[in-house]
Amino acid sequence: MASIVLGMGNGRALFGDEQVPDKELIRLVDPEGLNISAFDLSVLRGDGIFEATTVWKGYPVSLENHLRRLAHSAALMDMPAPNIAAFTRAVDLVIAAYDDPEPGPLLRIIVSRGLDPETGVGRAADRVPTVFIFLDAKGALHEADPITMVSMTRGYPSDITTRAPWLLNGAKTLSYAFNCAVHRECDRRGVGDAVLFTEDGFTLECPNSSIVARYGDTFVTPDPSIGILNGTSQRELFAWAMQEGRTVEYRKLPIAELREADRLYMTHGGWVIPVNELDGRALEYDPAEIDAVNDAIHTGRTHDDALTIGPR
Amino acid sequence: MASIVLGMGNGRALFGDEQVPDKELIRLVDPEGLNISAFDLSVLRGDGIFEATTVWKGYPVSLENHLRRLAHSAALMDMPAPNIAAFTRAVDLVIAAYDDPEPGPLLRIIVSRGLDPETGVGRAADRVPTVFIFLDAKGALHEADPITMVSMTRGYPSDITTRAPWLLNGAKTLSYAFNCAVHRECDRRGVGDAVLFTEDGFTLECPNSSIVARYGDTFVTPDPSIGILNGTSQRELFAWAMQEGRTVEYRKLPIAELREADRLYMTHGGWVIPVNELDGRALEYDPAEIDAVNDAIHTGRTHDDALTIGPR
Repeated sequence: MASIVLGMGNGRALFGDEQVPDKELIRLVDPEGLNISAFDLSVLRGDGIFEATTVWKGYPVSLENHLRRLAHSAALMDMPAPNIAAFTRAVDLVIAAYDDPEPGPLLRIIVSRGLDPETGVGRAADRVPTVFIFLDAKGALHEADPITMVSMTRGYPSDITTRAPWLLNGAKTLSYAFNCAVHRECDRRGVGDAVLFTEDGFTLECPNSSIVARYGDTFVTPDPSIGILNGTSQRELFAWAMQEGRTVEYRKLPIAELREADRLYMTHGGWVIPVNELDGRALEYDPAEIDAVNDAIHTGRTHDDALTIGPR
Repeated sequence: MASIVLGMGNGRALFGDEQVPDKELIRLVDPEGLNISAFDLSVLRGDGIFEATTVWKGYPVSLENHLRRLAHSAALMDMPAPNIAAFTRAVDLVIAAYDDPEPGPLLRIIVSRGLDPETGVGRAADRVPTVFIFLDAKGALHEADPITMVSMTRGYPSDITTRAPWLLNGAKTLSYAFNCAVHRECDRRGVGDAVLFTEDGFTLECPNSSIVARYGDTFVTPDPSIGILNGTSQRELFAWAMQEGRTVEYRKLPIAELREADRLYMTHGGWVIPVNELDGRALEYDPAEIDAVNDAIHTGRTHDDALTIGPR
């Protein structure tokens, strides 16, 4: 039974127009094996991009928005543009090989810039992105249990992204050591996750999630132009809120205002998770609401609307 | 002929007290092969640390200081402490397998936190660091040709490192996407490299190098407590300067003052490289001085003194 499906992609077809048969587009390999070169730029430099979501009963949640964001990350990283149709087909092929009873395995799409041309092995190779895609029922799976949260500084002012694009703010890169460090800091403090803010006090995002605040009937999330990811699950939540007749807003959101929210939601990987405490202040949440929005997302009811929602 | 030597280390022996025979300490593998799991934290998260230096005619330049810095990075990353003696032996074994005529191949020591415990493959594994070491005569080798430079903001204020240790400033992590992006920005601007500064105008370091300014007979470098690496080659340069009767200083160095230096040196990987232009201002350099200091470093004359030099 395939509980973990790992496919090594054809970088030339996935980042170009070359038409190849399915079996040449993505090659399924033994997940327990060694499948990556030590000279790959993912290994040596964290120099690549990725996306992650849940596949719910065979349905890859928000896949189009994830692939659009992958293309956006690629542009910010001066990488070639991904072939969205080819990526979609490759994801379908990975899903087709999965047959574990777990309904919601995690899907990850990983792209590196290829072998490091500053190494002897990489210098001799073509500069083709390394791509792999995996579906995993045996690792950590998303849950919708309420989570406690603290706020921490990201160290940057809120105008840095326009002034210093080389910081790569807003790109979902493989250089996640900082994100991992924030989670270790959360463990030390005994909290579930963190929301980051700028030095001048504006809300950003969580290390691997977006944040949404609710004030009355209005759902608010920080505008991505501040230098954060354009949340995929956050847009599904906004789509749900609009379908329910609520208002949604993208704007600069002071962290002090976030602390005063009526409700807080952390969103990632196809899930909306209630936040029940921020910086020591308890927050209410409605388990029925959380179930309703996750069900709407997983059954595709928010999908089409989420494609058209955005900060502009 | 082994021009590229790649050894996969025994993480348990290299991060513990277990005594193992040489052939179990590091296993030489085919550099052209696939030697890393797709679920390794180096691949998925850039969650690891590294060091790089030149091996000059069999002599690994500044190896003790590199391994001490590896231990410092491990501590900042909440990783176990490396066994310095075991790492030294593993490096020796890699060097012993090298037999290319190139006198100065590049040595890299790479450590990741191991397989990702949030994946199914990683969850089933022990949490042992992944270690590999390679010596490479066929990739980019260091040169001492003069280089042009521009200054760019790092986006952080100069006091952020003490306030926000989760930013990992001062750790040499595998999350180098930002460093790579700075080099692409340099390419766009037609300059050789960049020196980074804080939002409040203090000099930091270059993406993969340290910076040293000379004013008369005084050599100055930024104090690492600002959140930068403790330069290994920079300490070799300081050792040389002291042997020549010059003065050395660690301090906060305004970027405006850096721009007024008499001479500028970029140091990395066992080399001192003259900077002949910063932000459009030409700088003089003395090729004989550069040759002298690199020769002193490569023949080990600065080695012992460099071990005792530091900001305190």
